[in-house]
Amino acid sequence: MEQIFSKLEFITSGEGFIDITDTLNLFIQENNFCSGIFNLTSLHTSCSLTINENADPNVLKDLKKYMQSIVPYDNYSSLSKNRDVIYYEHYQEGADDMPAHIKTSLTNSVLSLSFQEGKINLGTWQAVYLWEHRFNKKVRSLNVHIIGEKFSNIYNK
Amino acid sequence: MEQIFSKLEFITSGEGFIDITDTLNLFIQENNFCSGIFNLTSLHTSCSLTINENADPNVLKDLKKYMQSIVPYDNYSSLSKNRDVIYYEHYQEGADDMPAHIKTSLTNSVLSLSFQEGKINLGTWQAVYLWEHRFNKKVRSLNVHIIGEKFSNIYNK
Amino acid sequence: MEQIFSKLEFITSGEGFIDITDTLNLFIQENNFCSGIFNLTSLHTSCSLTINENADPNVLKDLKKYMQSIVPYDNYSSLSKNRDVIYYEHYQEGADDMPAHIKTSLTNSVLSLSFQEGKINLGTWQAVYLWEHRFNKKVRSLNVHIIGEKFSNIYNK
Repeated sequence: MEQIFSKLEFITSGEGFIDITDTLNLFIQENNFCSGIFNLTSLHTSCSLTINENADPNVLKDLKKYMQSIVPYDNYSSLSKNRDVIYYEHYQEGADDMPAHIKTSLTNSVLSLSFQEGKINLGTWQAVYLWEHRFNKKVRSLNVHIIGEKFSNIYNK
Repeated sequence: MEQIFSKLEFITSGEGFIDITDTLNLFIQENNFCSGIFNLTSLHTSCSLTINENADPNVLKDLKKYMQSIVPYDNYSSLSKNRDVIYYEHYQEGADDMPAHIKTSLTNSVLSLSFQEGKINLGTWQAVYLWEHRFNKKVRSLNVHIIGEKFSNIYNK
Repeated sequence: MEQIFSKLEFITSGEGFIDITDTLNLFIQENNFCSGIFNLTSLHTSCSLTINENADPNVLKDLKKYMQSIVPYDNYSSLSKNRDVIYYEHYQEGADDMPAHIKTSLTNSVLSLSFQEGKINLGTWQAVYLWEHRFNKKVRSLNVHIIGEKFSNIYNK
């Protein structure tokens, strides 16, 4: 059983999803790992990780719209339609900042993924997404960490 | 440290919970594992995993009712009581489909569980649940993956 | 690759957050681990785990206030401002009990954290929090489990 640590960077462009499944699989394969655990950590508190459908892009649109409907933008912002519902004390970094922190805690900052034969174990309709919750373009770092068996070790046994 | 991968299937019967704790413990024991990580992955995007109370069944009823209250069924459906609140663009697979995707992202598709002496480390009142979010009977597959020590290895040291 | 299991106890004082990051790092270092996975399990169903901002304490206040706004206290309680919205059948253990179970399922009971050089891999602004959802003082146990490499093993290779 061996370990590897690295970082992957993604550039986001406002609220929405980046399918990172292929990048994760490529990282596994380039490092010659066969099977193990792929531990993924978002190093930010205003974007998050989730696993959801990879087929109809409307699923992602609806997910985003739903999350916007239950987490209002900041009251201080003209964007807020829910001025009477909630009042954020942390409003200084923008109308989308405190909502982004909330959305992060409602989803995941870490995901522990299993992989076999160099590929993350997912269902046919699943993808791993980096979910950006801020309005503006951001560079996002994910810590990637594998504990597992390499192909060579298995063949040499 | 050794690994094992397999799949477990469960048949669900509409929105609700299946306590899978005993099945997970049995899988550990049948494979002679003593201690390690049990990485559990739901291979679907309309059911999910959660850890919650194993004692009063009303907790599960209330959890389900709560989730139904914050994630309305699709507007196109006669089931919806929230026609003016949200509008799903992904409505073609049924009134319960997009809500199921949302509920999945609000809970967990993967759980990384620790186990010792052949049993998942949980508190007295905790159980691991497969949470079905669709209305109809479904066959659900979970990917199960253990990294850990076997009983024999420990005794032979 | 070696394993260690233990329990950590924290005393909470009502709804709110305890930053447990330093305690987790200390546990890693005291046990001479360098790098690996730190699997953390809350052994309760009315408190949970989350990763969020460590800088402005208002973020935590807003997180708590937000969660209170979407998960009403029990209808049977005079605290509830949402009597017509939801009705909990599990009300016998107090106005804050069923809401605490819900908040637990909306956040995390387990977190699988990566660590390197004796420290959990987090971003500059991230901390790991134990999130108490009950009103009263509680003793909370976390199961801690490391799979990783010790410093000595690495130096002796």
